[in-house]
Amino acid sequence: MASKEGDDEMSNPGEKTEKDLYTLGLDFGTLSGRAILVDIGNGSVVSEAVMDYPHAVMDSVLPCGTPIPRGWAFQHPGDYLEVLDYVVPEAVKNSGIDPAKIIGMAVDFTGCTLVTLDKEGTPLCFLPEFEAEPLSWVIHWKHHGAAPYRGEVQAALEACDPGMLRRHGGTLSDEGMMVKILQVVREAPDVYDAADLIMEAGDWVTMKLTGDLVRSQAMAGFKAFWQEEKGYPDNDFYCRIDPRLKDYATTKLRGELRMIGERAGGLCPEMAEKFGLLPGTPVAVAHYDGHAALLGAGISEPGVVMLTLGTSGGFILAHEEAHAVQGTTGMTENGDLPGFYGYASGQSAVGDGFAWFVKNMLPERLLLEAEDRGITVQELLSERAAGLKPGESGLLALDWLSGNRSVLADSNLSCVMLGMTLQTKPEEIYRALLESVAFGTRRIRDSYERAGIAVKGIHAVGGIVKKNPLLMQIYADVLNCHISICKSTQAAALGAAMFAAAAAGEEKGSYSTITEAIDRMSELEPYGYDPITENAAVYQKLYEEFEQLHDYFGCGGNDVMKRLRDIQRTG
Amino acid sequence: MASKEGDDEMSNPGEKTEKDLYTLGLDFGTLSGRAILVDIGNGSVVSEAVMDYPHAVMDSVLPCGTPIPRGWAFQHPGDYLEVLDYVVPEAVKNSGIDPAKIIGMAVDFTGCTLVTLDKEGTPLCFLPEFEAEPLSWVIHWKHHGAAPYRGEVQAALEACDPGMLRRHGGTLSDEGMMVKILQVVREAPDVYDAADLIMEAGDWVTMKLTGDLVRSQAMAGFKAFWQEEKGYPDNDFYCRIDPRLKDYATTKLRGELRMIGERAGGLCPEMAEKFGLLPGTPVAVAHYDGHAALLGAGISEPGVVMLTLGTSGGFILAHEEAHAVQGTTGMTENGDLPGFYGYASGQSAVGDGFAWFVKNMLPERLLLEAEDRGITVQELLSERAAGLKPGESGLLALDWLSGNRSVLADSNLSCVMLGMTLQTKPEEIYRALLESVAFGTRRIRDSYERAGIAVKGIHAVGGIVKKNPLLMQIYADVLNCHISICKSTQAAALGAAMFAAAAAGEEKGSYSTITEAIDRMSELEPYGYDPITENAAVYQKLYEEFEQLHDYFGCGGNDVMKRLRDIQRTG
Repeated sequence: MASKEGDDEMSNPGEKTEKDLYTLGLDFGTLSGRAILVDIGNGSVVSEAVMDYPHAVMDSVLPCGTPIPRGWAFQHPGDYLEVLDYVVPEAVKNSGIDPAKIIGMAVDFTGCTLVTLDKEGTPLCFLPEFEAEPLSWVIHWKHHGAAPYRGEVQAALEACDPGMLRRHGGTLSDEGMMVKILQVVREAPDVYDAADLIMEAGDWVTMKLTGDLVRSQAMAGFKAFWQEEKGYPDNDFYCRIDPRLKDYATTKLRGELRMIGERAGGLCPEMAEKFGLLPGTPVAVAHYDGHAALLGAGISEPGVVMLTLGTSGGFILAHEEAHAVQGTTGMTENGDLPGFYGYASGQSAVGDGFAWFVKNMLPERLLLEAEDRGITVQELLSERAAGLKPGESGLLALDWLSGNRSVLADSNLSCVMLGMTLQTKPEEIYRALLESVAFGTRRIRDSYERAGIAVKGIHAVGGIVKKNPLLMQIYADVLNCHISICKSTQAAALGAAMFAAAAAGEEKGSYSTITEAIDRMSELEPYGYDPITENAAVYQKLYEEFEQLHDYFGCGGNDVMKRLRDIQRTG
Repeated sequence: MASKEGDDEMSNPGEKTEKDLYTLGLDFGTLSGRAILVDIGNGSVVSEAVMDYPHAVMDSVLPCGTPIPRGWAFQHPGDYLEVLDYVVPEAVKNSGIDPAKIIGMAVDFTGCTLVTLDKEGTPLCFLPEFEAEPLSWVIHWKHHGAAPYRGEVQAALEACDPGMLRRHGGTLSDEGMMVKILQVVREAPDVYDAADLIMEAGDWVTMKLTGDLVRSQAMAGFKAFWQEEKGYPDNDFYCRIDPRLKDYATTKLRGELRMIGERAGGLCPEMAEKFGLLPGTPVAVAHYDGHAALLGAGISEPGVVMLTLGTSGGFILAHEEAHAVQGTTGMTENGDLPGFYGYASGQSAVGDGFAWFVKNMLPERLLLEAEDRGITVQELLSERAAGLKPGESGLLALDWLSGNRSVLADSNLSCVMLGMTLQTKPEEIYRALLESVAFGTRRIRDSYERAGIAVKGIHAVGGIVKKNPLLMQIYADVLNCHISICKSTQAAALGAAMFAAAAAGEEKGSYSTITEAIDRMSELEPYGYDPITENAAVYQKLYEEFEQLHDYFGCGGNDVMKRLRDIQRTG
């Protein structure tokens, strides 16, 4: 049930007063980009602008008409620049704030989302010779076309750096940089050869702001096998994957790496003029949106999980020690909070899955009822689903609509819906999908706890968190623990604004540490969700069934999903 | 691919000319009843009338407002009489045929569908004291409320008559008479005590026509453990199930049993007047609709399967020998063709499953597209699904939306849909449901062939067979054999008209045997379906996956479906 947060002071210990100093958080999500302008004294958003990417995610056809294979996903790099040019001036102008009081900015971005650039810094997809080659476009985080190359990269890592493989949960995801790059090497070698630089899109946009080639250590640590002590892997590793990858790290990945909260540079004059800001305004090192959100969620201590519920799901926390966690997608030093190891796990489809349901499985009668009553179909579905008791539908689903990112790290897995009868109603299927993501999250938490990392609390962030109280109650019941709700609906953008505040530093009247910025600029909602005892008891039983199916289909009991993919590909 | 039938003469050897003598086939299906008036010379339908049951299937609330538990299903006995009073006079009147030329009639009915009657012959549900008791209403064939009693009846049969259990495939269905009656004994003992007669609805309607209490041997053989040599089981068996069942067969099941094609009596004067027919017109013994359809499908020889594809699915054939077939729902002497053993298997949800999909999972955009184009949604779905190759969707389903009737005989099983991704489209799910019923049919055929019964041919009947060429092609590809299509869309009603023709006999200018009636009165379509080699190869792979999941979920590998039902019932 929804409950009041026991002690707001404890959760938000920072002193919160307006400071009349501001930073910009620039958040590049899956379908849109936004800028928020935030008072660094209390984290309040004074203005905001948002814009959808004109080309959204390209997964069926390129702009030139070339079809895109199933499961592949790209973005248009021009969309990011268009968004930047619109949202920043808009947010600045609408705020009416003196540009001198805007003391920093930072980018957060989806990832691993890769841009390939020629020697002039032009994205390769803009060159006529590459426009029809899908792999010259921005390779989107949710691109799964590289799955066939996962095994090779994993084998090379196992041979050259087994410790790094353990940092990635023992099984690589096909969403990481090297797996995607190996696909480029093998399937579009001309693109690989023509690429002078290969960059995380977040680093690329940051470079566009400053004019300087500086990359994020944390992003490199989570997705490109970088580590503080050794840097990128040795050439051995790259050559073992493919001889064409020789010198990959020192050439195409070149550029200085800096830590979160540090400056990547100052805003270049050209951009400053476009934005109406002062040249030299500090620009912080970029980070992934999911990790930036940890700050925005008000988490400044290790052991507290930030649960992001958006199109996909994130399960992110910092911890004092380095542990090998089965199915973590990555672990790296200073990954989220300076001085701690950052851990990331996640689920490939959360809101995406619910949207898939609404788009593909929602019968007209529910649409009409929602229209009649002036509510959204999601509200109607939630209302009907909320009228069901746990277990009442007899349904059980595996949350693998876009494969499993954690703990199985296998994008060839797929969704199962079990228990349907002629009496099964749409709202029951919808509720089973909600439950499946909560079960998936619980399976991830179990994996951390089995590895010795105790979860001390959960803060949930993301649009769905406020919009779907039913989902949050299901989470509390399935996880059988309290769920705190982050007040900001733009946790990633707010986190970016915090990175910017830390990068601005005391010299600009801001903070000397990220922790201080978090404590001052974040807030939890005054309510949260507590488990309902009888629901938790039923979900315990259902979770045991979930885990059995999870292991049967995911751990070799029956590889039918993979064989179906093979049949799908080859007949 | 659709193919011409090679030799119509062979398939339909009877000489077909009008005889200007007619019989009435009275077909009582799941949702409606119909009468067809047929020329016995060539089987041509000269008039027809149909009427929906006003109360359809009652599965949520009784007429008095009493709620019906989930999975239970009833009908209103008054509906049958209302239909009878409308369709027969209508068909007779519209034909303009001299009543003296209408030389017989017969009823086919769903089953096991049970009517309980008091001493005056009044259905118990018509008595005020029973109107709120669901189990006093007609217990419909698809009622699954008796499932908890299946095990007890099975154990008693195993102890008292293991040979009879083998006739029922080694596992009883919960749709048979004794399992349903045990539920009445235990949960509505007053209804059981008040029941002077318990009858198959087909026998009851036949009794209404003649005024004489005569029952069908074949129906009793398939669903009530009757056999030619021994009759009903001994009292030992009934008493072992429950002492209250003592003398059950000799009291509540009393009445003479006659063979298919024999007369149950002559039309009583009261009915004759209502119908505009001659009193004493021969009325044949009733049979189940699925079995009557075997005749209508033109099958007059053993080893040829009649595949019925309606709301549910039937797999029925005659064979020279008695074999124990895993998962047959029943086997009995003269069950379909005189002189042969009749075998019945089936699938609980076929058209019902497709209708469930259209009702619950069809998105508005497809509905609008169908409207725009002036076609039905089923046509649109079929068109889109037909554009997919086998295996292309990556989906695989188990056809257990209403449990499994054969070969697992377990109504607690439920549907699985496996392989869904964010790219999965509605037409892919629809096609996977079509494929699942074809896989289910193949699993049944395998079971017969493993028991030593070779399938020599397949004739498909039912509304779907003509309406859904995609489904028929999938059947040909999955079963990897030719599928012949029955010309009549009313095979059950036509079969009833053939029983009537046989019962009328040579004395009325008709035939002396059922076989002769079949050969004269039935016809196949001039086209059929042949397997497409490359499709059959892919379906072979998919079927192997189907069978593995079938056995895993159905044969004890993982009883998750049953545990989910338990959780559904008890939390």
